[in-house]
Amino acid sequence: MSVVLGENRYGKSRVRLLKVTREEDAHRVTEWNVEVWLEGKFSECFQHGDNSRILPTDTMKNTVYSLARSSDAVSMESFAQELVSHFIDTNPNADKAGARIVATGWKHLAAGEKQFTTAFTHHGEKHDTAVMTLSSTGDYASSSGFEDLWLLKTAHSSFAGYLKDRLTTLKETDDRLLGTLAKAQWKYNSTGLDFNASRLRTEAALIEAFAVHHSLSVQQTLYAMAQAALEAVSELAEVHLSLPNKHCNLVDLAPFGQDNPNQIFVPTDEPHGSIEASVRRTN
Amino acid sequence: MSVVLGENRYGKSRVRLLKVTREEDAHRVTEWNVEVWLEGKFSECFQHGDNSRILPTDTMKNTVYSLARSSDAVSMESFAQELVSHFIDTNPNADKAGARIVATGWKHLAAGEKQFTTAFTHHGEKHDTAVMTLSSTGDYASSSGFEDLWLLKTAHSSFAGYLKDRLTTLKETDDRLLGTLAKAQWKYNSTGLDFNASRLRTEAALIEAFAVHHSLSVQQTLYAMAQAALEAVSELAEVHLSLPNKHCNLVDLAPFGQDNPNQIFVPTDEPHGSIEASVRRTN
Amino acid sequence: MSVVLGENRYGKSRVRLLKVTREEDAHRVTEWNVEVWLEGKFSECFQHGDNSRILPTDTMKNTVYSLARSSDAVSMESFAQELVSHFIDTNPNADKAGARIVATGWKHLAAGEKQFTTAFTHHGEKHDTAVMTLSSTGDYASSSGFEDLWLLKTAHSSFAGYLKDRLTTLKETDDRLLGTLAKAQWKYNSTGLDFNASRLRTEAALIEAFAVHHSLSVQQTLYAMAQAALEAVSELAEVHLSLPNKHCNLVDLAPFGQDNPNQIFVPTDEPHGSIEASVRRTN
Amino acid sequence: MSVVLGENRYGKSRVRLLKVTREEDAHRVTEWNVEVWLEGKFSECFQHGDNSRILPTDTMKNTVYSLARSSDAVSMESFAQELVSHFIDTNPNADKAGARIVATGWKHLAAGEKQFTTAFTHHGEKHDTAVMTLSSTGDYASSSGFEDLWLLKTAHSSFAGYLKDRLTTLKETDDRLLGTLAKAQWKYNSTGLDFNASRLRTEAALIEAFAVHHSLSVQQTLYAMAQAALEAVSELAEVHLSLPNKHCNLVDLAPFGQDNPNQIFVPTDEPHGSIEASVRRTN
Repeated sequence: MSVVLGENRYGKSRVRLLKVTREEDAHRVTEWNVEVWLEGKFSECFQHGDNSRILPTDTMKNTVYSLARSSDAVSMESFAQELVSHFIDTNPNADKAGARIVATGWKHLAAGEKQFTTAFTHHGEKHDTAVMTLSSTGDYASSSGFEDLWLLKTAHSSFAGYLKDRLTTLKETDDRLLGTLAKAQWKYNSTGLDFNASRLRTEAALIEAFAVHHSLSVQQTLYAMAQAALEAVSELAEVHLSLPNKHCNLVDLAPFGQDNPNQIFVPTDEPHGSIEASVRRTN
Repeated sequence: MSVVLGENRYGKSRVRLLKVTREEDAHRVTEWNVEVWLEGKFSECFQHGDNSRILPTDTMKNTVYSLARSSDAVSMESFAQELVSHFIDTNPNADKAGARIVATGWKHLAAGEKQFTTAFTHHGEKHDTAVMTLSSTGDYASSSGFEDLWLLKTAHSSFAGYLKDRLTTLKETDDRLLGTLAKAQWKYNSTGLDFNASRLRTEAALIEAFAVHHSLSVQQTLYAMAQAALEAVSELAEVHLSLPNKHCNLVDLAPFGQDNPNQIFVPTDEPHGSIEASVRRTN
Repeated sequence: MSVVLGENRYGKSRVRLLKVTREEDAHRVTEWNVEVWLEGKFSECFQHGDNSRILPTDTMKNTVYSLARSSDAVSMESFAQELVSHFIDTNPNADKAGARIVATGWKHLAAGEKQFTTAFTHHGEKHDTAVMTLSSTGDYASSSGFEDLWLLKTAHSSFAGYLKDRLTTLKETDDRLLGTLAKAQWKYNSTGLDFNASRLRTEAALIEAFAVHHSLSVQQTLYAMAQAALEAVSELAEVHLSLPNKHCNLVDLAPFGQDNPNQIFVPTDEPHGSIEASVRRTN
Repeated sequence: MSVVLGENRYGKSRVRLLKVTREEDAHRVTEWNVEVWLEGKFSECFQHGDNSRILPTDTMKNTVYSLARSSDAVSMESFAQELVSHFIDTNPNADKAGARIVATGWKHLAAGEKQFTTAFTHHGEKHDTAVMTLSSTGDYASSSGFEDLWLLKTAHSSFAGYLKDRLTTLKETDDRLLGTLAKAQWKYNSTGLDFNASRLRTEAALIEAFAVHHSLSVQQTLYAMAQAALEAVSELAEVHLSLPNKHCNLVDLAPFGQDNPNQIFVPTDEPHGSIEASVRRTN
């Protein structure tokens, strides 16, 4: 019998970095959770324990902190690019280097009208994300996105006219709650962008489309959101959305002699619908 | 040998409730996670399986939803009061009824300048809390608070002059990051309050004190926060704060020939300091 | 207005410790998550930032590791006792010192009949616990227990004859599943025990009683478990059990023309019943 | 501008199923968390809200429970096959149907020598997994595996001779702890297998190889484990392993005048190494 090494990668995960920028008028805080990895000609290591081509993952972690100190990057995408460039430049045995960054947003604390310039709280639950890979032949691939964004519509959402088989018990509805914990990932069709500006415009388009859409299904709302982003942000090539349907079930109060005109719901975590799709710009 | 039943309670936990109020100009969403319980003369049930005095926890769950429909309560405290009153009124064998509510806040979605009146996202990670108990003799006890509020100071925090023994290796510092995941619980000295208004003023006082305090220790900052709340909100009798010290460690970049002027930190989850205390008003 | 410091404590949490004992025939692994704290005359620190009486929580962490190296303790209880003794002996301003330890169990890896003496996997999900406090006047208080133990009965569990009010919709049953994620805490009536031996006997008594009990309610099963432990282990003074009722709901397959003779269930996490009580020995 | 729907899928996640088999000598409990999904010609739904081809995810959930009642499947793989066959047979617009099952293992409770035939506890933390897809053209693809298996070696693990650059600070070691939370996924080269038997033999080979391997790196141990499984189980075509390096750091006790001969460690969750690879059988 003979066995061979297939696809493989190794690296460091959960490298946490908090950077404080101390400007005159106010401090600024950036928190990133970084993952970096290498793919390449490492079969000698896997098969025979020859470590001579292996950069320790501990060194990869050090690299994140050292580059964070010297870097001028203001976006996750730019910092990820610095990381993968460094690893490809210094590791001749790597065919590809990758970095994935998940941000925790901080904003200045406020109390009433007052804002405090050196005190912070989390911006919310949404985490922005960026992934970048660089091959040894010089090809970059990247995507940007977010995860953990709660969204809820209390109007303009129905679900009816669907396929019914002998196992179907769901009632049709023309007024339901539509709740989701959205995850998005998009690709740009150009380089040298102001990544933070493009991100803000993409998010705004996705959010507005979710809010105003007259939804006949989660699938249709997903498509409408992606279409709106592609229309609003010309540098977008493709948008992938994952919108789990976090059901809010209307409580049946009839046994207690009460009506329930779409007021009292049970939010549930499981089971949940899972709807995901990519929408692409064509020429 | 003889054994006896000691303190006991039973009830229902994680009863999730989402209420939509459909006003003309906008919808409003309230999400509460409710726990209710009874304490009382239930030794026959525990010892002999006599269930005749046992209200099923499933009925307690139904009660939460039924009361939610008929209730006009606009605060967690008021709804908790309705719940415990109902349970004491209808369960002669209960010596005490309790309710604890944890809120998930929702706010209207926004994109740029636009606000959407029927679309929502979570307000943040902070969860407001309220606990209320009522004894069969008519005594109420209650507290209000919050949990899961991230706070971070990037200036005006030092820690020095502490006790040193042979196991002390910590370096003194006059400029450190102070991060915490705050939990607060307070008691009022009067009834018939506008609970939501008192809550907002208490939170604002706690937050402002955290932000402006020149901190010599987490202990001192905790006391300053509680004191500020007691001074600002006359109906407060006592404030209990739990401020775990979520350490942000300065990265040593010297091995790489770099300085680190309080810029690059590693935020950590464990181990963490645990500082908690109550501060009370004296007359 | 005047405010005063009430009850307070500070310490270090989530101090993780893994100890390897390298005996000739096999290695042994102990993993403990330690929390230590002090209570005492610290109002100067809280009120004025005078740190001269404050032992840094970083030093407390160092103490855990240093004592772990020199300690001969084979039980969590004994190690907790060493910790609190050290802190009371060396901190004249402490009125009380406490330690809480949560264990993660490891056992030797096995494949078929083979056991491997230097390779391990987790023992299960149950975590053993121990809490010890020592006051400056020399009084010890301690408890032992466990948490996160899943238990499920598929026979001999009913629930009927309970109180019904106008909000009761639950059906009576003489054959249901009874599932729980048990938490236990017990106190001994003597000192100088072989803590590990007493723990094993207590757990065995609790588990056997759960398994063989003909349950009329969770409350009754809880009492039977505690009573069995008190009967089997003479050094037990009191047992506190928390048995959340993790409902397994029978699926209604009638709409699909199928019966369901207690075979197909939906296990749920929320809502859940919460039943807890203490049972004490009387002389 | 023109946009088009790219890859898409929808289905139901976290469908929890607990099945009790009541045999004469003992009961048996199976707990599965099921995800099912469809891919296909659904662009009308996504683009225009035409739901006429959409089987509700609620119906998919019902299907899981209805099939579970009628099924004779004793392995996750067989039940997954029934599910995807059902969905492809009844949904002409689906190009592909998929099912993923994650098992929670239950075993009979024991106390001392006694085993209890109708009482259970979790088998451990490991979750077995199975994925199956079926295309409308009749092509099956499947994999089996597990996740959440803690493994720890306290001997025969070194890491030295690696690449060093100017950012490398890691010390070489010939005796370290090697801990991981293993995840495995494998594919078979034939059909009609006794899936449960093949699973047991694969797991035993992976575990024994981990335990006995003289490790020069995590990479080498990963390869040795996969190779051992491929050698032991002839129906295996490919094994993919993910072995995060859950570092256990030796505590430096020198500042306290103590040595630490590989006894006292700090187990950590972050950062962690991430090593993953596929190993395949050739001809």
